[in-house]
Amino acid sequence: MNFKTQTQFLKSLGVVKPTVLIDTEKVRANIVKMKNKADRSQVIFRPHFKTHQSTTIGEIFKNLGIKTITVSSIEMAQYFAKAGWVDITVAVPVNPLEIIEIKKLSQSVNLSILVDHPDIVSLLKEQLHSQVKVFIKIDTGYGRSGVPAASFDLIEKMVRNINNCDHLFFQGLLTHAGNTYNVESHTEIREIFQKSIRDLNQIKQGLKEKGFDNCLLSVGDTPACSIMEEFSNIDEIRPGNCAFYDLVQENPGVCSANDIAVTVACPVIGKYPERREIVIYGGAVHFSKDLIQIKDDQIFGYLAPFENKKWQGIDKSVYIYSLSQEHGKVRLPENLFHKINIGDILTFYPVHSCLTAHTHHYYLSLDGTEISKM
Amino acid sequence: MNFKTQTQFLKSLGVVKPTVLIDTEKVRANIVKMKNKADRSQVIFRPHFKTHQSTTIGEIFKNLGIKTITVSSIEMAQYFAKAGWVDITVAVPVNPLEIIEIKKLSQSVNLSILVDHPDIVSLLKEQLHSQVKVFIKIDTGYGRSGVPAASFDLIEKMVRNINNCDHLFFQGLLTHAGNTYNVESHTEIREIFQKSIRDLNQIKQGLKEKGFDNCLLSVGDTPACSIMEEFSNIDEIRPGNCAFYDLVQENPGVCSANDIAVTVACPVIGKYPERREIVIYGGAVHFSKDLIQIKDDQIFGYLAPFENKKWQGIDKSVYIYSLSQEHGKVRLPENLFHKINIGDILTFYPVHSCLTAHTHHYYLSLDGTEISKM
Repeated sequence: MNFKTQTQFLKSLGVVKPTVLIDTEKVRANIVKMKNKADRSQVIFRPHFKTHQSTTIGEIFKNLGIKTITVSSIEMAQYFAKAGWVDITVAVPVNPLEIIEIKKLSQSVNLSILVDHPDIVSLLKEQLHSQVKVFIKIDTGYGRSGVPAASFDLIEKMVRNINNCDHLFFQGLLTHAGNTYNVESHTEIREIFQKSIRDLNQIKQGLKEKGFDNCLLSVGDTPACSIMEEFSNIDEIRPGNCAFYDLVQENPGVCSANDIAVTVACPVIGKYPERREIVIYGGAVHFSKDLIQIKDDQIFGYLAPFENKKWQGIDKSVYIYSLSQEHGKVRLPENLFHKINIGDILTFYPVHSCLTAHTHHYYLSLDGTEISKM
Repeated sequence: MNFKTQTQFLKSLGVVKPTVLIDTEKVRANIVKMKNKADRSQVIFRPHFKTHQSTTIGEIFKNLGIKTITVSSIEMAQYFAKAGWVDITVAVPVNPLEIIEIKKLSQSVNLSILVDHPDIVSLLKEQLHSQVKVFIKIDTGYGRSGVPAASFDLIEKMVRNINNCDHLFFQGLLTHAGNTYNVESHTEIREIFQKSIRDLNQIKQGLKEKGFDNCLLSVGDTPACSIMEEFSNIDEIRPGNCAFYDLVQENPGVCSANDIAVTVACPVIGKYPERREIVIYGGAVHFSKDLIQIKDDQIFGYLAPFENKKWQGIDKSVYIYSLSQEHGKVRLPENLFHKINIGDILTFYPVHSCLTAHTHHYYLSLDGTEISKM
């Protein structure tokens, strides 16, 4: 690593303060890989756009023929609708306080929303007066939102109520098995994923026996979608993080370090020989406070070694071990400490790219183009 | 608590999604308290504005006669300079990549910057060509940035170099004893604070003996400044969080719950009887991932009970125990579970108000006024 050369290159891109860099070639390769897998299994790829929140990154998807997307808020749906996306699923349970916004959106967009409580179905019947597609969110074990998979009677009642309403169109069942984030082995990730598919299919079969024939099954979390070779017995996948990846995914081997398409470029602003540490300009407001715990160490970002105008590989001996609002602390091995100076720019992989990306007002591509975002 | 009434009130303010609420009366009272203490001790009160990052909140300080402020980035200095603040200390070590911005700022603002490395003094001598005040940042034990307090020779050399330059004006020594955040007892907070003041005075005395007479001493972290009754042997305090306070401060009794001037209003979007839990619309992007660990529990925010159109007290039996990007999970006691419904709006105290405030584009006061921010 030549820190002088990489700093000169990063300065030439316009980096003077903590900046999210995007390797758009890696983003494209990550998307292509997931899309090809979805195509081979003949399932819809409806990527979650909460990871990047950027119409420019959205264009990469669009140019690959992807027309269906997932978002995590009405505001995000509005942002992408404005940029021409017309098939959007808002993958959080309906917030009753945003009925007016949902109504407006549904007039210009092919909108799908989520319900997980019969009261919300009633509310939508009474207050929406606008055609909208409805998924029932199912909890297959994650324990966040969703009707428990075992509560078939409740699910059936909700489907019936949706179907009894002129402006609501039952689409199917949707789950997010986010518990794949809590395990480390691929076997466990696969088991959680397969259980969620079994659960959904069991409900689907039950609904069929009650006369409800059309029921799409939508699943998708990046860990499972990344390690599965093919998808069967489902209709749609919704991974989002897979466009960028990050250390949460790299740590259990869901992706390789070379798949991570995002780093944070941070100027070195302090150098302390007595403790062989540097302080970077790059803190909680640039990375988020998400961390990886490895034994007693808290890791807020690993060094992304820079060669030939892009990052490659990973150096796990160098990491941010503490984050204040604007600063990060990094302890260095002897050989690197003497090579790095105040004013150099280092690049770090983020722990959780969605949260890191969220905190920035724009990104920078490796050709120096500013990438706009929400 | 009547959740229907509070929801109606919060809706009337315009809350439909996660929103930072500011009780400006509490903000004002918190500032007055700190200012009076500074006045009594005849020290300059130079509040840190990174907590609120808002010119509107800044007006509350201005109306109380405060003209000197601290910020944590050049961008923040630019924002407040534009709003008419003319005496600004940027309390992070100089980022060499922002020399041009520092130069521009110093032409319109009475600007103080921080150095903690002799190379940066040399760089400022060569490249700045613009009059600026310089503090030497001293590390009195926190171990983030700053010249170690024991390195007197280095400090003296830096002072000499600063004084040998026409456009740099040595102001004094500045420290942030952020290690007060790592202890719980007031005795320990007081000891850390007093040690930092002893360290600074020892260096000041040493410099005096070498012929350097003018040396201001600037200290300030919210825990110490809040619990100290008076300040002696220093010239300036720079607490920032004390305008808002939060659970990090309330937990060790640095402030009381009633001093916390900020909450996040979150709509309830899910209700799950089988686990007596609700899901709120309010996640990591609205609170930050900072947490308080109490035994085995991670706490991302306590319920702020709402009465008579404002929050009062604290309910420690109700807290956010898990945060995703947009959601928070809250387990409820039996009696509350039946009173709270989907569509209600609850208010939660943030763990770390600076990071919570940072993630929002605006705040809302309790009279429904939108408070603009960076």
